[in-house]
Amino acid sequence: MKNSDTIFMKQAIELSQKNIESGRWWPFGCVIVKDWVVIGQWANGVTSLNDPTAHAEIQAIRDACTKLWDFQLQGCTIYTSCEPCPMCLGAIYRARPARVVYANTKTDAAAIDFDDDFIYQELKLTDYWARSIPFEHIHSQEALDVFVAWKEKDDKIEY
Amino acid sequence: MKNSDTIFMKQAIELSQKNIESGRWWPFGCVIVKDWVVIGQWANGVTSLNDPTAHAEIQAIRDACTKLWDFQLQGCTIYTSCEPCPMCLGAIYRARPARVVYANTKTDAAAIDFDDDFIYQELKLTDYWARSIPFEHIHSQEALDVFVAWKEKDDKIEY
Repeated sequence: MKNSDTIFMKQAIELSQKNIESGRWWPFGCVIVKDWVVIGQWANGVTSLNDPTAHAEIQAIRDACTKLWDFQLQGCTIYTSCEPCPMCLGAIYRARPARVVYANTKTDAAAIDFDDDFIYQELKLTDYWARSIPFEHIHSQEALDVFVAWKEKDDKIEY
Repeated sequence: MKNSDTIFMKQAIELSQKNIESGRWWPFGCVIVKDWVVIGQWANGVTSLNDPTAHAEIQAIRDACTKLWDFQLQGCTIYTSCEPCPMCLGAIYRARPARVVYANTKTDAAAIDFDDDFIYQELKLTDYWARSIPFEHIHSQEALDVFVAWKEKDDKIEY
């Protein structure tokens, strides 16, 4: 824990506070910092933007990556007012920041009816028909051919 | 499996094909359908938009939700050229479509170096210090107070 962590976390929490004051929007805020400068910040926009992916972390990652014009957040710290949900965890691993700092826990979130546990349980199901949303497989040679064509490209951008 | 599934999956695969033909972009496409009409579609935009969250599914969900002006995809089917990664799975559970149909599997994706297994393993770690990206907790009464304030609002939009 660093002294600057408290300052940037305060900004993330203020975003969550302002979001509920602005309307009926959800109480989550996120700030992304590189070299002590805020390069991305957002509050939850699910109900204000009608976008189920617009969690504070996803929005702040998009904001920071636009500023850096890079699809990786190397050396950055993500400050989020609440422990990230599975979608945002996945996004964070895709963005590869140096570290993540959070305030409220997923238990705190469950107590106000934002319960991620259901999604964690669904992700563990290897029998896809047992999921609450059915996931059905179509075998397609065309889809596989696209993968092979991509693998054989010389100028592709690797991850 | 329905007859229309093959038609819409073909469109998703075509998006993935066009994406690699357009540049050095990644081979994934997604189409979202409601009442036999395509209401959202995208190919992977990570390297073209410099946005690590711009997987085909996330982009198509945003597109469809904008068209419907709703943060839920009730009654929709998501056709994706490849089995969704953990981030996109989380997004799909947030969007709540009726079903998901995919072509290439995560094993096919791993074979061309898009390996999700690492993220699945990280998500399972309950000791957050064992994660490759450190997740650190700051206890904050202010953050908890925002949650309580939201819970007590009468006009909030529930999930």
